[in-house]
Amino acid sequence: MENRAAVMPELQTIELREVPYPSLGPRDAVIEVQAVGVCGSDTTYYKVGYIGDWVVDGPIILGHEVAGRVAEVGSEVTRVKVGDRVAIEPGSPCRDCRDCMAGRYHLCRDLEFLATPPYDGALVQYLAMDERNLYPIPDSMSYEEGALLEPLSVGIWACKRANLEPGDDVLITGAGPVGVLAAQTARALGAGSVTLVDVSEFRLELARRLGFQIERSDAPSGRDFDVLLECSGAPGVLAAGLARLRTNGRAAMVGMPKQPVELPLSNLNDKELTLGLVHRYSHTWPTAIDLVASGRVDVESIVTHRFPLAGSEDALTLAGRVPDSMKAVVYPQQVDTLD
Amino acid sequence: MENRAAVMPELQTIELREVPYPSLGPRDAVIEVQAVGVCGSDTTYYKVGYIGDWVVDGPIILGHEVAGRVAEVGSEVTRVKVGDRVAIEPGSPCRDCRDCMAGRYHLCRDLEFLATPPYDGALVQYLAMDERNLYPIPDSMSYEEGALLEPLSVGIWACKRANLEPGDDVLITGAGPVGVLAAQTARALGAGSVTLVDVSEFRLELARRLGFQIERSDAPSGRDFDVLLECSGAPGVLAAGLARLRTNGRAAMVGMPKQPVELPLSNLNDKELTLGLVHRYSHTWPTAIDLVASGRVDVESIVTHRFPLAGSEDALTLAGRVPDSMKAVVYPQQVDTLD
Amino acid sequence: MENRAAVMPELQTIELREVPYPSLGPRDAVIEVQAVGVCGSDTTYYKVGYIGDWVVDGPIILGHEVAGRVAEVGSEVTRVKVGDRVAIEPGSPCRDCRDCMAGRYHLCRDLEFLATPPYDGALVQYLAMDERNLYPIPDSMSYEEGALLEPLSVGIWACKRANLEPGDDVLITGAGPVGVLAAQTARALGAGSVTLVDVSEFRLELARRLGFQIERSDAPSGRDFDVLLECSGAPGVLAAGLARLRTNGRAAMVGMPKQPVELPLSNLNDKELTLGLVHRYSHTWPTAIDLVASGRVDVESIVTHRFPLAGSEDALTLAGRVPDSMKAVVYPQQVDTLD
Amino acid sequence: MENRAAVMPELQTIELREVPYPSLGPRDAVIEVQAVGVCGSDTTYYKVGYIGDWVVDGPIILGHEVAGRVAEVGSEVTRVKVGDRVAIEPGSPCRDCRDCMAGRYHLCRDLEFLATPPYDGALVQYLAMDERNLYPIPDSMSYEEGALLEPLSVGIWACKRANLEPGDDVLITGAGPVGVLAAQTARALGAGSVTLVDVSEFRLELARRLGFQIERSDAPSGRDFDVLLECSGAPGVLAAGLARLRTNGRAAMVGMPKQPVELPLSNLNDKELTLGLVHRYSHTWPTAIDLVASGRVDVESIVTHRFPLAGSEDALTLAGRVPDSMKAVVYPQQVDTLD
Repeated sequence: MENRAAVMPELQTIELREVPYPSLGPRDAVIEVQAVGVCGSDTTYYKVGYIGDWVVDGPIILGHEVAGRVAEVGSEVTRVKVGDRVAIEPGSPCRDCRDCMAGRYHLCRDLEFLATPPYDGALVQYLAMDERNLYPIPDSMSYEEGALLEPLSVGIWACKRANLEPGDDVLITGAGPVGVLAAQTARALGAGSVTLVDVSEFRLELARRLGFQIERSDAPSGRDFDVLLECSGAPGVLAAGLARLRTNGRAAMVGMPKQPVELPLSNLNDKELTLGLVHRYSHTWPTAIDLVASGRVDVESIVTHRFPLAGSEDALTLAGRVPDSMKAVVYPQQVDTLD
Repeated sequence: MENRAAVMPELQTIELREVPYPSLGPRDAVIEVQAVGVCGSDTTYYKVGYIGDWVVDGPIILGHEVAGRVAEVGSEVTRVKVGDRVAIEPGSPCRDCRDCMAGRYHLCRDLEFLATPPYDGALVQYLAMDERNLYPIPDSMSYEEGALLEPLSVGIWACKRANLEPGDDVLITGAGPVGVLAAQTARALGAGSVTLVDVSEFRLELARRLGFQIERSDAPSGRDFDVLLECSGAPGVLAAGLARLRTNGRAAMVGMPKQPVELPLSNLNDKELTLGLVHRYSHTWPTAIDLVASGRVDVESIVTHRFPLAGSEDALTLAGRVPDSMKAVVYPQQVDTLD
Repeated sequence: MENRAAVMPELQTIELREVPYPSLGPRDAVIEVQAVGVCGSDTTYYKVGYIGDWVVDGPIILGHEVAGRVAEVGSEVTRVKVGDRVAIEPGSPCRDCRDCMAGRYHLCRDLEFLATPPYDGALVQYLAMDERNLYPIPDSMSYEEGALLEPLSVGIWACKRANLEPGDDVLITGAGPVGVLAAQTARALGAGSVTLVDVSEFRLELARRLGFQIERSDAPSGRDFDVLLECSGAPGVLAAGLARLRTNGRAAMVGMPKQPVELPLSNLNDKELTLGLVHRYSHTWPTAIDLVASGRVDVESIVTHRFPLAGSEDALTLAGRVPDSMKAVVYPQQVDTLD
Repeated sequence: MENRAAVMPELQTIELREVPYPSLGPRDAVIEVQAVGVCGSDTTYYKVGYIGDWVVDGPIILGHEVAGRVAEVGSEVTRVKVGDRVAIEPGSPCRDCRDCMAGRYHLCRDLEFLATPPYDGALVQYLAMDERNLYPIPDSMSYEEGALLEPLSVGIWACKRANLEPGDDVLITGAGPVGVLAAQTARALGAGSVTLVDVSEFRLELARRLGFQIERSDAPSGRDFDVLLECSGAPGVLAAGLARLRTNGRAAMVGMPKQPVELPLSNLNDKELTLGLVHRYSHTWPTAIDLVASGRVDVESIVTHRFPLAGSEDALTLAGRVPDSMKAVVYPQQVDTLD
């Protein structure tokens, strides 16, 4: 059976290639991939070939925000059946280590994660996944929405890592895809108020239309906050955000600057702040499905551009080329043009 | 200055009387009472004169769900000013005991609480309150909504006592005012799903229109849940609800049957359930204001009847007289008829 | 190779029999069993043949408090090697279900647990266990201590389920093996004070010698407490204990009466108590080893009787025959007499 | 009545002066001060005159680790009586603000704290304190132990801020008075292991004798840990400690370097560490009394030098003069020489 993929054979190059149709383990399903969101990490691998210790070493297929249709199931599969519409959780843990046993499977040292070297990702027509990574989505939810449960999961997890409590006033620095989805999550979990900060008028306007309070980075208000979700990854933003927290303030660090971060802790400690680092997520898909299916979170609001499989490279380079963009989604079943 | 009140001089009797205009301590404000919700506990005092160890002993003014306008302020008041529209938190703690110091002021043994003997309540035109019990509400919020922040607070606290987590499937037994507000709260705090159970078709229909899943008490579905909020107070309902919880299920007991409760713990323990008793609330008004002001919770949805001050007795007896009723609100500034 | 076991072919009968030497899966180790503690649940299976839905249906080997020496390892075993002295965690979870993934493997519906029908237990000379159930113990720790890490785990978990905080005053009802180990745990985790209640002078005296405050059940002091660990399983004890808790009190229910429990919740709710049911434990062995190895908990203090394998029936009937007893330990490598 | 104090009239100067005998508010008690521990912050005020925004501006009496005897009580005092032996909690909160109401009184912006400008401290013979700051200590506890409940409170709070769980392996950087007391606390709260790191052989030897594992700062082992308590305040130590934490590691920052701290967050985030800043403590005295009275913590183990009131300056300069020192205690009732 044919199976086309957007392969990155070397840095900053994407080629449409025929790849083997996936082989099927007994607990696997083959997914006919319907929608793939492009994430900043995909773009980073495309441009520089590594993130931290993960280094691209040979051709790789990118993309880890995925939804599709179950096309085939292995002999022991019980959780899904052919024809099911599913969202995919991209990480497969070992289920055996200290972290897996403690319920923190996202910290598993042996996690196999789509589009994280050496594992291929989802910019492909057919993909095999363990049934335990598949979450059926309701008919009312589009595949695009299904794919975007992944960045929404980052927002959900960030709120958890910040110990968000109902009524908290939340500051989110960085109104990109993760920031806006984190903002929607915070609101859907009972935040008292949510304020987004960014440099981009385009992104602030999108945030404003979604009902959030907004501030330009260079014109902060004097307000203070209970929770900070740092989603920009820009240098200095964490320190500036921490300075705006109240006593007992809690911060989660989602954006991750490459350089060491300088923090004036001696100015912050009499507020007894707490800072939680954030690495992906765990246990979030069921909640993400509930929030989107009920309309409490609108994940499609962040999608600004859509591409066929042949447009994968355009999708990966979108952020650099088009300042007024947010999130690109690729539709792998549509190879050359979108309907 | 005139000040009329609905006084209960003896059981099952309400008389409109002139009462002294309140004297003003340095941290007090006089509130021109605009809206007072009637609670089941008010009705219980009216009918039988006691709840647990609190015994009515002499004339009393009932009503503790209150909002109004600041008419006058004491010499040291800084938090509100004349003309402010405010919701009232009805309990004043000692701020000195073990519980107050630990942030659990609602468990203070010396709490002075409106309409809980020996303290008078709010079915009166002018009421003095400590400024620390006053929460300004936005112009967009009606006084009725302001008054109903009190039962909403019960719902918020019940979710907290049940350790509600985002994505939890929530069962609420009893679709009365507290049950429906708890349901709205659970949804606004990220519950995966919310199901209300009751015997009353009227109440279930109201719940259904608010978007909740419903079940008749005598025709339960086979679904199971993560969280139970018992809001009926009816015998046997807690045990039946606990049986429907999953492993790690959490229950909060809001409705309180007078009789001892029989629980088959040996059938429940391999699910490791947790049961939290609920006594009022603390720290909830700011969150309640945010949830209502933003439209995430619709407290007016439960109001079925409204009365002038002279209708206070009708309001107190409403539930017994009119099966298809939910919540009565009294408008003390309107003595004989509503506008 | 020879392998003798204390088999229960029918109720209230134990026979020494030769059983097959265990076969070895790739991740299993064969354990030369050195010490087996006898638990109340073993005695219950011996006497009546069931606990809740677990029903003995054919010959069974009892015993689930175990330590021994690694005699042989499967081809993929990496965590232990031949000769290692190990304590055994008796439950093997599926690692796949909702509870396992959430870190609550003890609530796994497919848990295979030693000496819980249909699984055999440890009153045998050689036993195969998955390496993931094996915890190496230091040379300074006896096998008997290693076996008693199991009931100590119950105590550790009870403290967790009660949300024990440093400084809490703890009441423990029932000074049997679990009660005394829970008491030692509470002290080792920073409890402010620990008080044990029982009817047995023998048990109270043992508790007193271990440094605990004691009360006779029929002569309670007027003290109140922050935490209740109910370890007696006797009717009425939970309700009586809850009445002695302060505001914000937390109770964990370890002992489990067969009959439904009647609780006067309406008298308790203004203290906002929390009740947690307790089902075994998870993640406790490393902590248990640390507490015993460092001398903070003395598990041997509860052992009153020791038996060779041929004395297994005497061990199982000890509590009924000898009022002044606490815990029996069987040494399976010593068949007819102890050294 | 006579009242002598060690007054700091200007930087790096201490004079014995007669000061007014304290006046007594209705809820105050006069304390005959028996023992005062000298803290690093006292020494910092002595040497440079400020800590952060707290600036010495005029003569001040230092010392905030205090115990003594109740000499006189105000008209409304009920919690203590003349003759009681008491430890003093040095901070008096407003009991009214957001933090006080939430149970976080140590974060109160209006906290009045002994020996923190503009408030005088305890190097004086008689001191008036609100009865709510007084904790009776048992006869078996010395005044010196009572005074050292204050630095012990820092250790208790640090463990809380690090969310110390039973079984955690704990790394403590800095084996000074706070580090050693934090180490004893961690052990008393159920830590799996406790390792202290320092540059001083003297301090490491003291830690070793108390049963802790030790490492020289320049010769770290390869071990990793669950919890870091940073008690050195030295630059770079936090970052080095964080690098040794496991996944889900938690750190509390007790020592506070003046300079901004540089943290390589991008190297740490896939372990999802959590960092809590620490500012004093709250609610700790009852627990501290229990831990010391029961022998689980030995606070006297850190005292290396004792002085009469006239030796206060020697006490304040001890750390700089005598490398092999830990904690100085001043006995104000003994003016010129110790018994």
